[in-house]
Amino acid sequence: MRNLNQDTITQAVIARLSDTPDARLKEVLTCVVQHLHALARELRLTEAELQAGIEFLTAVGKKCSASRQEFVLLADVLGLSTLTVAMNHDKPAGCTEATTFGPFYVPDAQPMASGADLAGDAPGQPCRVRGRVCALDGGPVAAAQVEVWQSDADGRYDVQYEDLPGPRARGVFSTGADGRFQLRSVLASPYPVPEDGPVGQLMRASSGHPWRPAHMHFRISAPGFEILVTQVYRQGDPYLDSDPVYGVRQSLVAPWVPDEQGLYTLDFDFVLQRRAGSEP
Amino acid sequence: MRNLNQDTITQAVIARLSDTPDARLKEVLTCVVQHLHALARELRLTEAELQAGIEFLTAVGKKCSASRQEFVLLADVLGLSTLTVAMNHDKPAGCTEATTFGPFYVPDAQPMASGADLAGDAPGQPCRVRGRVCALDGGPVAAAQVEVWQSDADGRYDVQYEDLPGPRARGVFSTGADGRFQLRSVLASPYPVPEDGPVGQLMRASSGHPWRPAHMHFRISAPGFEILVTQVYRQGDPYLDSDPVYGVRQSLVAPWVPDEQGLYTLDFDFVLQRRAGSEP
Repeated sequence: MRNLNQDTITQAVIARLSDTPDARLKEVLTCVVQHLHALARELRLTEAELQAGIEFLTAVGKKCSASRQEFVLLADVLGLSTLTVAMNHDKPAGCTEATTFGPFYVPDAQPMASGADLAGDAPGQPCRVRGRVCALDGGPVAAAQVEVWQSDADGRYDVQYEDLPGPRARGVFSTGADGRFQLRSVLASPYPVPEDGPVGQLMRASSGHPWRPAHMHFRISAPGFEILVTQVYRQGDPYLDSDPVYGVRQSLVAPWVPDEQGLYTLDFDFVLQRRAGSEP
Repeated sequence: MRNLNQDTITQAVIARLSDTPDARLKEVLTCVVQHLHALARELRLTEAELQAGIEFLTAVGKKCSASRQEFVLLADVLGLSTLTVAMNHDKPAGCTEATTFGPFYVPDAQPMASGADLAGDAPGQPCRVRGRVCALDGGPVAAAQVEVWQSDADGRYDVQYEDLPGPRARGVFSTGADGRFQLRSVLASPYPVPEDGPVGQLMRASSGHPWRPAHMHFRISAPGFEILVTQVYRQGDPYLDSDPVYGVRQSLVAPWVPDEQGLYTLDFDFVLQRRAGSEP
């Protein structure tokens, strides 16, 4: 294994991996090495470019914190998140489609009472959301946990403010016996994917606008059902056809309808997929 | 651009990159997206695996500091560093071969007088190094800057100690009019690639031992010549044929010869490649 050159190095690395005890890890690492080396060869990568790539990834890592996941954002803007979701959610027709998680999810959101105001003092036009969680046969899913998070009128999530005392515009609601939940909040706005980090810099250096269409995030779980991670997009948004993270699905676009007092209402039903072996 | 699926997402991302102003950046990003998506498809990557990959890269980023480059180590153990060096140093026969930089290089090492002791109080058996820097025609290269860094008898670099007051076993020497330099130091030892970070964990989970053969790092620069980054490996080391970063070249293996008093001496000549357009 001396004198490896550009023609022999790949096989040498793969040979070294051949004794990896975990078969899946071996498969993943082998495939990573093959594609990484093919990439370097096709580009005839220079040492300065490798160094620049290493510095970029280092900056992405440094930007990650408990409330910000810059590598998730990178996977989003490279289309890898949407590809992975697509490969893993080949659901029966009629189930609500999944889409990307996004970089702003924070675990352990607080439970909130039915009808409570999600937004607190977040700026924005008032709205309400009335949802129903059901199975594919239309039957209600009671006591489903509906986790909701969103940006405000300024297009920012709570974790993007430096001075908030706690979570805002995120919380968990439970469905009633009829599968229904409701909440008050403010209208989400379109916002640029965060531009204060290395992925934002990359977006500016590449092309296309950074604006995500206005949306609300949902993560819905209930015993016996697959977890649904999705977003509902606001009908009429100008960025629905150019989402920089490729997440929009027509079935997830819905109207927030204003009444005469200017209160907007979203009505949306979520259809969960039963977990295999959990038929009623 | 709604309803992208696993068959259409890759082309959509590439189309969005098509207006990237910098042609090379566009080429690099397009190639990255193609290989990243092909990788995900071939593996049928799960969401949990994507998440695990993101967590791994985040941990690699968090481990990076001013004195430790965990992404360089990752590129090293995946063979990407050696591949990139090989593609970019197709030198005339007779020039000293380049090899990987490694994760322990620290810029701005201190100048040291000819014959000075590089090691300071680093543990190890005493040795001396006598080198000559010359051009391909054998002519001496005067005033070349010879940057040297190495591990000690415990297999550790200065930056791996928490309690050292400053740099140790790293410094810069200048060649005289005859192209020669010399220094005192201690014998470097074989050492495992650092196992206290995520790349070390990956090494343990994959296969092969983590031991690098004993070596001394050199970075040699002189006006009119290409910079040479290389390592000299100690003849007889048991790990020369199984280097976990694939850096060993036969032409860089040399003996540290002991005298009767137990002082080891390495004699090694470094042949630099002239920079194009810098012919004498």
